[in-house]
Amino acid sequence: MKTTKTKYELWKQKARVIIYGTNTPAGRLFDIIILFLIMLSILIVMLESVEEIDQKYHEILLISEWVITLIFTAEYILRIITIKKSWTYIFSFYGIIDLIAILPMYLSYFFTGTHVLATIRSLRLLRVFRIMKLMRFIGEASQLKTALKASRTKIAVFLYTVLIISVVIGSLMFIIEGEENGFTSIPRSIYWTIVTLTTVGYGDIAPQTELGQFIAILIMILGYGIIAVPTGIVTVEYARSKRRTRENEQTDPVVRKNMCSQCNTENHIAGARYCHHCGSPLDNTEQLF
Amino acid sequence: MKTTKTKYELWKQKARVIIYGTNTPAGRLFDIIILFLIMLSILIVMLESVEEIDQKYHEILLISEWVITLIFTAEYILRIITIKKSWTYIFSFYGIIDLIAILPMYLSYFFTGTHVLATIRSLRLLRVFRIMKLMRFIGEASQLKTALKASRTKIAVFLYTVLIISVVIGSLMFIIEGEENGFTSIPRSIYWTIVTLTTVGYGDIAPQTELGQFIAILIMILGYGIIAVPTGIVTVEYARSKRRTRENEQTDPVVRKNMCSQCNTENHIAGARYCHHCGSPLDNTEQLF
Amino acid sequence: MKTTKTKYELWKQKARVIIYGTNTPAGRLFDIIILFLIMLSILIVMLESVEEIDQKYHEILLISEWVITLIFTAEYILRIITIKKSWTYIFSFYGIIDLIAILPMYLSYFFTGTHVLATIRSLRLLRVFRIMKLMRFIGEASQLKTALKASRTKIAVFLYTVLIISVVIGSLMFIIEGEENGFTSIPRSIYWTIVTLTTVGYGDIAPQTELGQFIAILIMILGYGIIAVPTGIVTVEYARSKRRTRENEQTDPVVRKNMCSQCNTENHIAGARYCHHCGSPLDNTEQLF
Amino acid sequence: MKTTKTKYELWKQKARVIIYGTNTPAGRLFDIIILFLIMLSILIVMLESVEEIDQKYHEILLISEWVITLIFTAEYILRIITIKKSWTYIFSFYGIIDLIAILPMYLSYFFTGTHVLATIRSLRLLRVFRIMKLMRFIGEASQLKTALKASRTKIAVFLYTVLIISVVIGSLMFIIEGEENGFTSIPRSIYWTIVTLTTVGYGDIAPQTELGQFIAILIMILGYGIIAVPTGIVTVEYARSKRRTRENEQTDPVVRKNMCSQCNTENHIAGARYCHHCGSPLDNTEQLF
Repeated sequence: MKTTKTKYELWKQKARVIIYGTNTPAGRLFDIIILFLIMLSILIVMLESVEEIDQKYHEILLISEWVITLIFTAEYILRIITIKKSWTYIFSFYGIIDLIAILPMYLSYFFTGTHVLATIRSLRLLRVFRIMKLMRFIGEASQLKTALKASRTKIAVFLYTVLIISVVIGSLMFIIEGEENGFTSIPRSIYWTIVTLTTVGYGDIAPQTELGQFIAILIMILGYGIIAVPTGIVTVEYARSKRRTRENEQTDPVVRKNMCSQCNTENHIAGARYCHHCGSPLDNTEQLF
Repeated sequence: MKTTKTKYELWKQKARVIIYGTNTPAGRLFDIIILFLIMLSILIVMLESVEEIDQKYHEILLISEWVITLIFTAEYILRIITIKKSWTYIFSFYGIIDLIAILPMYLSYFFTGTHVLATIRSLRLLRVFRIMKLMRFIGEASQLKTALKASRTKIAVFLYTVLIISVVIGSLMFIIEGEENGFTSIPRSIYWTIVTLTTVGYGDIAPQTELGQFIAILIMILGYGIIAVPTGIVTVEYARSKRRTRENEQTDPVVRKNMCSQCNTENHIAGARYCHHCGSPLDNTEQLF
Repeated sequence: MKTTKTKYELWKQKARVIIYGTNTPAGRLFDIIILFLIMLSILIVMLESVEEIDQKYHEILLISEWVITLIFTAEYILRIITIKKSWTYIFSFYGIIDLIAILPMYLSYFFTGTHVLATIRSLRLLRVFRIMKLMRFIGEASQLKTALKASRTKIAVFLYTVLIISVVIGSLMFIIEGEENGFTSIPRSIYWTIVTLTTVGYGDIAPQTELGQFIAILIMILGYGIIAVPTGIVTVEYARSKRRTRENEQTDPVVRKNMCSQCNTENHIAGARYCHHCGSPLDNTEQLF
Repeated sequence: MKTTKTKYELWKQKARVIIYGTNTPAGRLFDIIILFLIMLSILIVMLESVEEIDQKYHEILLISEWVITLIFTAEYILRIITIKKSWTYIFSFYGIIDLIAILPMYLSYFFTGTHVLATIRSLRLLRVFRIMKLMRFIGEASQLKTALKASRTKIAVFLYTVLIISVVIGSLMFIIEGEENGFTSIPRSIYWTIVTLTTVGYGDIAPQTELGQFIAILIMILGYGIIAVPTGIVTVEYARSKRRTRENEQTDPVVRKNMCSQCNTENHIAGARYCHHCGSPLDNTEQLF
């Protein structure tokens, strides 16, 4: 069913293996360059936010920023044209992240004429979201994901209970301590309750009355104790998902989760070199981490 | 033994299914409306406590508050008249919560004439306990409950030990640091000890002497280490209660815990549509969460 | 081999059952009274330490204090004369605690003539150690103890590693931040490092330089992560000791750990009413908690 | 294949058993002396850093310091000459640590003539790294190591995710709170985010705006919850490595990991007195802890 590929088609396929795959030397190199550029770019955004550094090296930072943006733009365009289902990529999570990584610079360029400097500044800061491009390089850690998914409802119930406790105790503290001791409103009292319950304890607000300190002690001990609940849940679920994986490995044939970059079919047999659905060659993409 | 039902009886039964049940579209809608009203109501109480907002929007907040209170009153009356064992409901946990949710507004109305403004203010704040109405929507999480119940005595012993340690070390710190460093009394020193032991660490009181700082280090490491104890207990008990549930599921017929709203009988067989004790139709109440 | 008991001997035995035992109504009452008096006594010591309260109610507190001390003295004397091996009790852990609970009051009385007020004050504060009398009422929680004992060496290695890390990083921070930012000496820097590592975070000392803040981030993440280590150890050991106990219960005859109050023999068969070693009746002492 | 040993060779072997081994009385004594000297030395470095103490006791501290340095130098030389593969020791981890333990004093002596006092001071502080000599005395805790190794990738993914979250939220807080509330730059905002996420909570920077406090609440609850993840991972891996060790112990012959001090061969059978590779006597080195 394969069509005879034109020269362009062949180039596209080669480029796709480099851009989307990681098990060829070129693909690996491509990933490492992108990884390095993301980190450099985050560093630049951070340095820009430090006033003294920005004043001194404004020019250099700006030029580096534009170079990186142009490279990321090229990467974005390449990703679109080499993949077959372009629209699937564009509206996928990573497609949107890749767009957000380049958009702020272009927008800030067009808005320079206007006087809304604050807006431009915020826009430029959005570049920090480039760090989410890094998520592509995180391995699956699928057992952990399964465990967290299985824990979801229980942890939701737990957080829900914590929230109810926080609202009730926060309101109590608002009545007991009052405005003169920094508990100026119920939302602020709830903020303090959560600061205490999670054992963060900034100390920007602290109870002054004897009764307030006594209730604070109860909240602290409660917070200190109930941290055992999510920990217990995640541990048990993780142990279970791990045991299941082991059991599955002993009975099922090993199956790879690699997605075919042509037809998005998943679950190929280990060692498979061609997609079992559309017959195009698989990248045998492995995760960097 | 069933009596031929009058029209009123039929209406009551229908209303009961809507109010107490959650597996009919109308019942589900009723729950969602109540849920929304509770949250709105909590928001109003919070906003009222922020002075600037209260001064601006006092009228709107007050009117919304009365509307919500009236709806909750209607809900309370409906719950009483539709259920057969009204008194059981009235003196049940949720019955009392439902009453507390509406009482403060009426009381604050009657006390307006007097000059005890502080009392009225506190009264009105009691409305925040409405959040406990939300507990009705929390699922059972029965394994977790079993685990926490099984851990109870051990965690009590743990907390008891923590308390003894806190009193002893708190008194020691009172002697070592003394009033000039903020340790003005033994209760205050114990407060500081628990702030440190639970790793909250406000920093409103901090040891200044070398010996005090050395003991502080010991408390911190102790607190950092012994958090492992409740965590270990809950994890092990939870794993155990989970394993038991699984074993039971394999041998026992599946049993639903739904309470019959007529005779309060529990433990109906899965899929049961009539109470096996009094024959009235079951709501097949499922939990929202 | 039993001697015919005199009237005094019989009274002693009865008193012993009440004082040392907990499974007769009188014994239980005795324990509850002592428990109440300990807590009252701790409360008095605490209230005395609050200056305003002490100035107002000095007389009442002092008289209550003397009454309680006299009761504890009577208890101490009774414990000595009713038990057969008096010296074993006197030099046992609880014997010393019982003595420390009464000594400070008598000593402070004899020292009143002298001018060393500070010493007297400290002496009187020692009464707070009475709280350790409460330890008698803590149940065995033997599985937890077994788990903690089994974890001992591993947790020691863990703490030892934490200490080495703290000294190294503390010294580094002393060089980086220096005296001008509050890191006035290495011990103080180590104090700060442990405050950070254990996630207490008072904020009385905080890094000001960029490098210092960067290292602080590393310490925090380290501290946040390595708390998993003692938790993991205790959880696994506790699960193991629990499993073992269950296995033992299925094979071994159930054995009571009750100590014979006459000959200190332990490990009596469940339900045993007489000591298998000396033949004297057992109190079948059960724990209050 | 053994050569007839000269007197010097025999002395060397004896010395080696004392210096490297711990199961002879002399070897044990040697270890305890070194342990004591390390701790004394760390204490001296700490005391020197406290200005008041340094001014009073400068002479005594300096002399003690030199005495200890000379003893450590002797130990270092003995370690080199008694072992057969001297260069292996010199470039081993402990070899380098032993050198670093003595070098700073000699260097500071030679640099005294120059005016770079700050450098000398830093140099002298490097002596604190002597504490790493203590690592020689830490037992293997091999199951824990195995567990931590097995958890490595998962914990790396976890930390990586935490980092991404911190950068994104840190940047958001920089926009929301701004310079006027202490969030002066993105790196500083990230520092605050990690202080909050790890529940350290110094309170040197705290959100002032309502939105900022709301986001702070989310971070705290997130941090409070996700601590369950590393804990779960380590617990499960530790339980697994422990189970495996137990299973291995039942099937494999017990094998000692003692390294032969002559040829560095490991894994000798329990109770072996001669190296199975080179035939030289084994020290049967056991760990102090």
